[in-house]
Amino acid sequence: MPGLTIGDPLPNLQVQTTHGPIKLHDYVGNSFTIIFSHPGDFTPVCTTELGAMAAYSEKFSELGVKLLGLSADDVESHKAWIKDIEAYCNGCKVTYPIAADPDRRIIKELNMVDPDEKDSSGNQVPSRALHIVGPDKRIKLSFLYPASTGRNMEEVVRVVESLQRAANHKIATPANWKKGEAVVISPSVSNEEANRMFPQGYKTTDLPSKKGYLRFTNVE
Amino acid sequence: MPGLTIGDPLPNLQVQTTHGPIKLHDYVGNSFTIIFSHPGDFTPVCTTELGAMAAYSEKFSELGVKLLGLSADDVESHKAWIKDIEAYCNGCKVTYPIAADPDRRIIKELNMVDPDEKDSSGNQVPSRALHIVGPDKRIKLSFLYPASTGRNMEEVVRVVESLQRAANHKIATPANWKKGEAVVISPSVSNEEANRMFPQGYKTTDLPSKKGYLRFTNVE
Repeated sequence: MPGLTIGDPLPNLQVQTTHGPIKLHDYVGNSFTIIFSHPGDFTPVCTTELGAMAAYSEKFSELGVKLLGLSADDVESHKAWIKDIEAYCNGCKVTYPIAADPDRRIIKELNMVDPDEKDSSGNQVPSRALHIVGPDKRIKLSFLYPASTGRNMEEVVRVVESLQRAANHKIATPANWKKGEAVVISPSVSNEEANRMFPQGYKTTDLPSKKGYLRFTNVE
Repeated sequence: MPGLTIGDPLPNLQVQTTHGPIKLHDYVGNSFTIIFSHPGDFTPVCTTELGAMAAYSEKFSELGVKLLGLSADDVESHKAWIKDIEAYCNGCKVTYPIAADPDRRIIKELNMVDPDEKDSSGNQVPSRALHIVGPDKRIKLSFLYPASTGRNMEEVVRVVESLQRAANHKIATPANWKKGEAVVISPSVSNEEANRMFPQGYKTTDLPSKKGYLRFTNVE
């Protein structure tokens, strides 16, 4: 199936949400933005996910990250369902907008259709897709999870922390990295440049190839 | 960019690997299979990721899951690089095959091209894509991460544990779920069916809508 993938521009769609109409590029503005779809309102995993996202929304706000939910249900359904979400998550508040896509136009353009799932009327519904969009309005990273598998907010926070550091420094984050752990210097940076860019120093791992490409440092 | 997404069939390509030629469908057989690409051999994040995958390979083997790495480098490069990977990860062994795609044919068909990255010759390289393929040879779940962000093996294990339970029971796993925690019963299952299917019992969360859709149980 054709669809949006990393590096692609976010289509600048006009969408109806629980916070009124928004244009996607205006909403993103200069922030990293998380756009996440769910199969349907008043369904079990979705309730736990949007509750978890509400519980993490302060954390995302601290990181300067905006949130936007999305499903094929309408705005009135979303508003009624939010009462269930907030009751489930013990007083957390759904402060982020949830977009409505009854025509399935947005979920198609954003590669969020789940081909294996239909609603009770036989219409297509979204997968548990999650795109992280950069301030340049391009897709930086995507999760495409099926209806069976709720997402993991800790992993979403982890990758945001990685993307933000990589946007500010010529570094990348190694496998299983968590905030506070060492990062690696990009291969495009020579050792001479690394000495200037990283006055805190760096450590090169000694490997059989002796190519000296695995250089660890620390950045905030 | 057009590309493979969840629900799509895995193309049955013939690929060259460090373990000899394989056909993708034969390799998958009746197992869940993880196909993961990396931007390039002898680069920093990739070395940590393939080392982490080697360290987790026994865990994946216990889960009955096969692994297949992939980049645009050739087999000889992969074989030389494995010495670095194994040195980095303190004696772990790269027992899984790594496929070679110097023509960039496979990464295009598997939606693994990173539009923002080129090698030193200006050729396309893969992103950090990871597809989990089911025994039915279809894509069940995908991660599309950029070069800057190493993947998280704990999250990969978590979603495999979810997919396998959902394949065996009419359940799904809630947000942030980990093995051993309660799961939710699928909305397609009536309460009467749930009583038969889950003799261990289940608990319905009381929500303002009184729709009774959030039912937790436990499965192995």
